[in-house]
Amino acid sequence: MGKGGMCDGEKKEAENMAAWLVAKNTLKIQPCQLPPLGSHDVKIRMKAVGICGSDVHYFKAMRVANFILKEPMVLGHECAGIIEEVGSEVKHLVVGDRVALEPGISCSRCNICKDGRYNLCENMKFFSSPPYNGSLANQVVHPADLCFKLPENVSLEEGAMCEPLSVGIHACRRANVGPETNVLIVGAGPIGLIMMLAARAFGAPRIVIVDVDDYRLSVGKDLGADQFVKVSTSIQDVDAEVGEIQKAMGAQVDVAFDCAGFDKTMSTALNATRAGGKVCLVGFGHSEMTVPLTPAAAREVDIVGIFRYKNTWPLCLELLESGKIDAKRLITHRFGFSQEEVVEAFETSARGGSAIKVMFNL
Amino acid sequence: MGKGGMCDGEKKEAENMAAWLVAKNTLKIQPCQLPPLGSHDVKIRMKAVGICGSDVHYFKAMRVANFILKEPMVLGHECAGIIEEVGSEVKHLVVGDRVALEPGISCSRCNICKDGRYNLCENMKFFSSPPYNGSLANQVVHPADLCFKLPENVSLEEGAMCEPLSVGIHACRRANVGPETNVLIVGAGPIGLIMMLAARAFGAPRIVIVDVDDYRLSVGKDLGADQFVKVSTSIQDVDAEVGEIQKAMGAQVDVAFDCAGFDKTMSTALNATRAGGKVCLVGFGHSEMTVPLTPAAAREVDIVGIFRYKNTWPLCLELLESGKIDAKRLITHRFGFSQEEVVEAFETSARGGSAIKVMFNL
Amino acid sequence: MGKGGMCDGEKKEAENMAAWLVAKNTLKIQPCQLPPLGSHDVKIRMKAVGICGSDVHYFKAMRVANFILKEPMVLGHECAGIIEEVGSEVKHLVVGDRVALEPGISCSRCNICKDGRYNLCENMKFFSSPPYNGSLANQVVHPADLCFKLPENVSLEEGAMCEPLSVGIHACRRANVGPETNVLIVGAGPIGLIMMLAARAFGAPRIVIVDVDDYRLSVGKDLGADQFVKVSTSIQDVDAEVGEIQKAMGAQVDVAFDCAGFDKTMSTALNATRAGGKVCLVGFGHSEMTVPLTPAAAREVDIVGIFRYKNTWPLCLELLESGKIDAKRLITHRFGFSQEEVVEAFETSARGGSAIKVMFNL
Amino acid sequence: MGKGGMCDGEKKEAENMAAWLVAKNTLKIQPCQLPPLGSHDVKIRMKAVGICGSDVHYFKAMRVANFILKEPMVLGHECAGIIEEVGSEVKHLVVGDRVALEPGISCSRCNICKDGRYNLCENMKFFSSPPYNGSLANQVVHPADLCFKLPENVSLEEGAMCEPLSVGIHACRRANVGPETNVLIVGAGPIGLIMMLAARAFGAPRIVIVDVDDYRLSVGKDLGADQFVKVSTSIQDVDAEVGEIQKAMGAQVDVAFDCAGFDKTMSTALNATRAGGKVCLVGFGHSEMTVPLTPAAAREVDIVGIFRYKNTWPLCLELLESGKIDAKRLITHRFGFSQEEVVEAFETSARGGSAIKVMFNL
Repeated sequence: MGKGGMCDGEKKEAENMAAWLVAKNTLKIQPCQLPPLGSHDVKIRMKAVGICGSDVHYFKAMRVANFILKEPMVLGHECAGIIEEVGSEVKHLVVGDRVALEPGISCSRCNICKDGRYNLCENMKFFSSPPYNGSLANQVVHPADLCFKLPENVSLEEGAMCEPLSVGIHACRRANVGPETNVLIVGAGPIGLIMMLAARAFGAPRIVIVDVDDYRLSVGKDLGADQFVKVSTSIQDVDAEVGEIQKAMGAQVDVAFDCAGFDKTMSTALNATRAGGKVCLVGFGHSEMTVPLTPAAAREVDIVGIFRYKNTWPLCLELLESGKIDAKRLITHRFGFSQEEVVEAFETSARGGSAIKVMFNL
Repeated sequence: MGKGGMCDGEKKEAENMAAWLVAKNTLKIQPCQLPPLGSHDVKIRMKAVGICGSDVHYFKAMRVANFILKEPMVLGHECAGIIEEVGSEVKHLVVGDRVALEPGISCSRCNICKDGRYNLCENMKFFSSPPYNGSLANQVVHPADLCFKLPENVSLEEGAMCEPLSVGIHACRRANVGPETNVLIVGAGPIGLIMMLAARAFGAPRIVIVDVDDYRLSVGKDLGADQFVKVSTSIQDVDAEVGEIQKAMGAQVDVAFDCAGFDKTMSTALNATRAGGKVCLVGFGHSEMTVPLTPAAAREVDIVGIFRYKNTWPLCLELLESGKIDAKRLITHRFGFSQEEVVEAFETSARGGSAIKVMFNL
Repeated sequence: MGKGGMCDGEKKEAENMAAWLVAKNTLKIQPCQLPPLGSHDVKIRMKAVGICGSDVHYFKAMRVANFILKEPMVLGHECAGIIEEVGSEVKHLVVGDRVALEPGISCSRCNICKDGRYNLCENMKFFSSPPYNGSLANQVVHPADLCFKLPENVSLEEGAMCEPLSVGIHACRRANVGPETNVLIVGAGPIGLIMMLAARAFGAPRIVIVDVDDYRLSVGKDLGADQFVKVSTSIQDVDAEVGEIQKAMGAQVDVAFDCAGFDKTMSTALNATRAGGKVCLVGFGHSEMTVPLTPAAAREVDIVGIFRYKNTWPLCLELLESGKIDAKRLITHRFGFSQEEVVEAFETSARGGSAIKVMFNL
Repeated sequence: MGKGGMCDGEKKEAENMAAWLVAKNTLKIQPCQLPPLGSHDVKIRMKAVGICGSDVHYFKAMRVANFILKEPMVLGHECAGIIEEVGSEVKHLVVGDRVALEPGISCSRCNICKDGRYNLCENMKFFSSPPYNGSLANQVVHPADLCFKLPENVSLEEGAMCEPLSVGIHACRRANVGPETNVLIVGAGPIGLIMMLAARAFGAPRIVIVDVDDYRLSVGKDLGADQFVKVSTSIQDVDAEVGEIQKAMGAQVDVAFDCAGFDKTMSTALNATRAGGKVCLVGFGHSEMTVPLTPAAAREVDIVGIFRYKNTWPLCLELLESGKIDAKRLITHRFGFSQEEVVEAFETSARGGSAIKVMFNL
């Protein structure tokens, strides 16, 4: 399959243009040749592509964790578009269908794929994860089973939002959030806000959100948090702040989502959670952490991690269709697909501030 | 119930003598009055009491973690004996029955008790956990439903071993060990060895044990580890040693038990475990740890803690009766219940070395 | 405890009057002496008591399944009231508190209690389950941990509704209903309607309800079913009706609740459910059933049963407080606690028709 | 892929001969052309093929349940052989490797495949399940990821036994058998015996086996059942026999496997199992059953079905390699691959009697 059924950077072709990251802070819209359409593939004209935090990391550093960019790569993996062509074996999609794309192609042959945890597949080919090109392009070729038809009342932009929402959904499933799960969200950035929407959609009766920033907390409150607690950046304050959090909850914290991933956020999550509860590490800040692991273990507070998602698109679309999640409210900035706008969009996303989700309309 | 249906230190009575910890390193055999026998209680003449690591901690420091000893307390909670008297409502036991005692009395009224996780009950009354006296005494009064009749071929000493075995069983249940779980044991001390016996009894096909000490490793090998790996105390060596561990396993590590609880042991456990596997923190060394939490979370390696055990005695007795676990091999030293021997026994246990389980025969 | 901490029929006392079933169709309001208040008990003045289907069965036949009434018994177990007196050890309730009562007292000593499935306890003492008297009385004495304080905006009648709602909640938990579970409800009687409210509160995105009766279906639709399908009583029609059900769902049936318990309803539930789904048997009609068990097993459609509930009151009160469940709409008839009204109330409930829940206001 | 990557009946070729079922009771060894070798496929020379009950059903009736044979089909799906050729992308196998074959090829694109329950895939292509040819042939072409290398001490015949063993393993996983699960096996035919070996390998401490036939029971006892109970064919005897079974167990029945699938066997399984236990329907006798479903549901005895297996070969091979399962003892008859022997082998298997597993050596 070469570079993953996505667009192939080696052979140039005039028509399909893509946003190539060629060096730190340097994005260029350049041609990207599409691979041949396999019998189970579809060709999609991209219409909406969101910028993810990892895209910004690559943009700024040419790396994310151990994924290091040595060659130019097309960015983008939060996307939706319109079917332009279908492979001979494709039955559930026709030309003209509006679809959201799940970006990762697992091997389906290894044990972990067969066991239903394909997100952990070691042979995964994932949009904009080196060496595979991303989907910020006019067109991509993708397996049809990873393209999900949008309900009538779900827009293409909302379709692109399925990708970040999937992280929240996967985390809720792993932490088993339901109508009797009081949820603490540590960190009110884009991931924390999505986590909050997902937890609400899974029925969480009480959600407390925590951050160091007043603006973010106010957005969290607007988007539906029951209570918020402003915290400091000092690890010394954990105990006092846990007291405030528990008071704000007015009940036990059953599950905490650490949406930042630092010593303090994880310590807060662990100490605030009730005996027998769960902490889910969603935001990856520091690789190594210094945290009170033994007291948590001694209260059987389990720690579950998440890596991307699996089998989440159908539920995403259902939650968007029914209105249980209003993802549009997270889209704060929109850009077109010109050289200038692409750069501006990434700079906007990198600045943070009021930018939650930056979206391209192609 | 006063001090937990156990022996009551305030009123003295001649006949029932108990081993009181009165100050650091100072144990005294002194009288301990028994509480009245409730309708659901039994009175047991103690015959075998093992020394636990926590008993030794109290003996040396008058404290264990946040449990601080302010008054004299009777030690001991790994125990078995013979029924001397039964309460009016007790139906499954008669005088003369040999029984193993589960040491903790939960409240049965709180939510977590009703949910079946009574080990996490905040109102637990537990032998030799302040302010409740322990069972290193001639007699104790205890709820009948926490006294389990020994099968004919299980000795009183083996009955006392149910307590430490229960830790291993609870950990295997929480980590879901079965016939397809390759197990890594980090730390070959008493807890690591028990963990190994339990994992084997749960069907683990491959067990690799790791320690810094040759003697301990050789005991681990004798008791049934498939492979052992000697490691250093340097955190720098984790990566290299993880390579050795995986090679020794000859397969993926599905579950790792950290039976020590330090930065290095936990880092080893986390890094050695396969994506989608579990790490169980069994040994509580340091409270705070510096560990590579994010890479583990990103491979969905879940961390589960354990606190004591629940509902384990019936299974323990079954495994002892069937010979699936031979706990006798862990008993390395035996002492009588005189003033001199009690002190010597605790000193022996505290020295470690070849001492795995030190047992009193009363 | 004698007859379960409830009211004791043998010794008469003037003040506490209860509704005694003395023979088929014969209810008498007569005195019922209260047992002494234990240290962990409370005395409650009953204010709202609902009539359950099992109460009606006893009223009509002096038996329910294998529970046979040989002596007079006080009926009633869906109840709420006001605390009049608290035992010496009771900490979370004070005189004047409005509470909903969980009617069953488990032994807390057997294995299944310790395992958290206390609803299956063989030593259960349950209101109006022989030989234990019920709670259709002016006062009862009950363990404080089974009395749950009502939130301010939850009425006493709604408190009494926690009992039938608990059945729905327990069934949703056992069938693992969540935001991605399309639910089929077979039978739109009182149990089916409650099941529907519970499934909705657990997040079920699509609910189809099925019955033979137009009126019941219209109530189901009013109370929130997405679609309904009218079915026949003929077993011959199962295949055709399953087709209609699946069409009405517009998606796979993930979980089906058989709220009637007959050959046809269970066959419908089994055949309509997708491979890998679940069928939950909630309504107990016939003891023995003739159903297509093998085809269901061959699609790994699991069958789970439910017996009462466990640990459901806190969630019930939360769902009532938040308005996620509006139980008031199920209360169709109200009666006072006079000899005449008690008989009329039971006759009304027995007639069915428009009566869903018949409630006493004491 | 045409007929499933297996052998293709339409185009004849001299060298590869296969056992074609052409009519009831009529098997013919005739040529079967192999499909082209795909990049992820291997070509295997078959060395050991066992006869399954479903093969015999096809042989006798040209149908199994709703699978109806309209054209000639090659039988056989329990098989092992030696790699003769590997596709260009195959990395874990080389020519000469001895392998056991998992017979079903799932689509890997549908929701249930992605969810890890690929045995329920509606697009499954399975050896000797119409319209796909089986593996009783000199050679087959098969996906490499479904071919598992045999450990050195595991014979090719044992490799072929992985298929029936997989049914037992899948059932043990679904019923969650472990070291604390007392198991009842209803039916001591080939499936019951395999179930027994699997339950033992999963750690079941007590196994009671039940049948109407003395010889079968004696085989069950020889192969490791702790106790056996001879039963009648009369449904009237269920209650009395359940009493005998529970007495023979000397403990509660936690899980029962119905390995026959008739009214009486299922009624026995349901009634014998403890509250909160599980019944697993393994043997498919009658499609419709008349059984006491409500009393079972009211004790929360869950019913789980199984369809084939998923992800079982690695565990099978491990259990065979370690000697935890001795599958050789189930092979009672062996035949060569000539026209005469093939017919004789199927007739032997069809007669039953002392024949448990009939094996071809090719």
